[in-house]
Amino acid sequence: MNSPVLQALEERRTTNLYDASHSIDDAQIHELVRLATKAPTSFNLQNWRFIAVRTPDAKARLRALAWDQAKVTDASVTFIVCGQLADHSVLPERLAPAVEAGFIPPALLAVLEGAAKGLYAGQPQLQHDEAIRSATFGASALMMAAQAMGWGSTPMIGFDGPAVAQAFGLADNEVPALLVAVGAALPENWPQKPRRPVEQVLELV
Amino acid sequence: MNSPVLQALEERRTTNLYDASHSIDDAQIHELVRLATKAPTSFNLQNWRFIAVRTPDAKARLRALAWDQAKVTDASVTFIVCGQLADHSVLPERLAPAVEAGFIPPALLAVLEGAAKGLYAGQPQLQHDEAIRSATFGASALMMAAQAMGWGSTPMIGFDGPAVAQAFGLADNEVPALLVAVGAALPENWPQKPRRPVEQVLELV
Repeated sequence: MNSPVLQALEERRTTNLYDASHSIDDAQIHELVRLATKAPTSFNLQNWRFIAVRTPDAKARLRALAWDQAKVTDASVTFIVCGQLADHSVLPERLAPAVEAGFIPPALLAVLEGAAKGLYAGQPQLQHDEAIRSATFGASALMMAAQAMGWGSTPMIGFDGPAVAQAFGLADNEVPALLVAVGAALPENWPQKPRRPVEQVLELV
Repeated sequence: MNSPVLQALEERRTTNLYDASHSIDDAQIHELVRLATKAPTSFNLQNWRFIAVRTPDAKARLRALAWDQAKVTDASVTFIVCGQLADHSVLPERLAPAVEAGFIPPALLAVLEGAAKGLYAGQPQLQHDEAIRSATFGASALMMAAQAMGWGSTPMIGFDGPAVAQAFGLADNEVPALLVAVGAALPENWPQKPRRPVEQVLELV
């Protein structure tokens, strides 16, 4: 039983108010993203990209496209978490290190690529769903890492997706799935919002 | 610095092989889902539902719709993690406990509901994306909780979504966003698959 992890899950809450004087350096941002990429992705596609918006100018540009929310600029860094449309053709490259490490047999690679092709090829909605799922798994791990480092975080969906994609140079295969602000939480933040009783959301079969 | 959390993120890996003789009781399933619902959702909509498939019969029915993957039946429980299409009209009920607790002012409730309406009403793709995001955040927290309790877990997307929705009685507003198997991992499982260098997935602006 790893109780610090359970405690972290128990206590996580969304930060609304940040200390605008706090900064997170690029090495810390790098470490947050490194841990975020430990999250799972379908077939280990790793179909994501993290844009760390941390200069005053870039944060102001993003805030203007995100309902003018103060946390976008008050947080130390706001990530644009992008999912990439699932594409089976990148799989050999993405799994090459696992093949080289010896635990994925080379012959299995073609089987996995074929399964991914069968799932996604010609299925734009499923490709898009996978972009959202992968980005959300990555964002979740990034937020857990931030919490463990003593910071607050905020997942945000209130922004103009197409405008953010254009302003920050997303590729045609990239979806800005959500924003995640990270920084020093002020003490005035709300407590965790109560949740529905488990009985309302759990069915046992 | 909460290093057990960072260590858990660092070490997480997907389980492929489960000890089919291991079982997880309903109280433990309840606790996994309770912790899963600590994950964030847009406006605290909590637009999710967790179907815990744990009887041999139900697991067999699910496996037949999920590429006949052995882990669906070998795991102690396989969750169908459902997202619900985002619907602003449920917000007053979902936020009522926070209003009663005194930290969300009643006047703010209408503002929040209006914002959610502006975001989702008449926007089926955004409603759907939110179902996927919420379910994935919940799945991520559930998997972290399972790991902390000593179990392995497997997020799965290889299944027939419409058939699962029909076989397990999902409502019209529910999307089977992914499956998550949880159980006792066998020692023969693969190690964590190597990830892309951070430089390939991080942009600093």
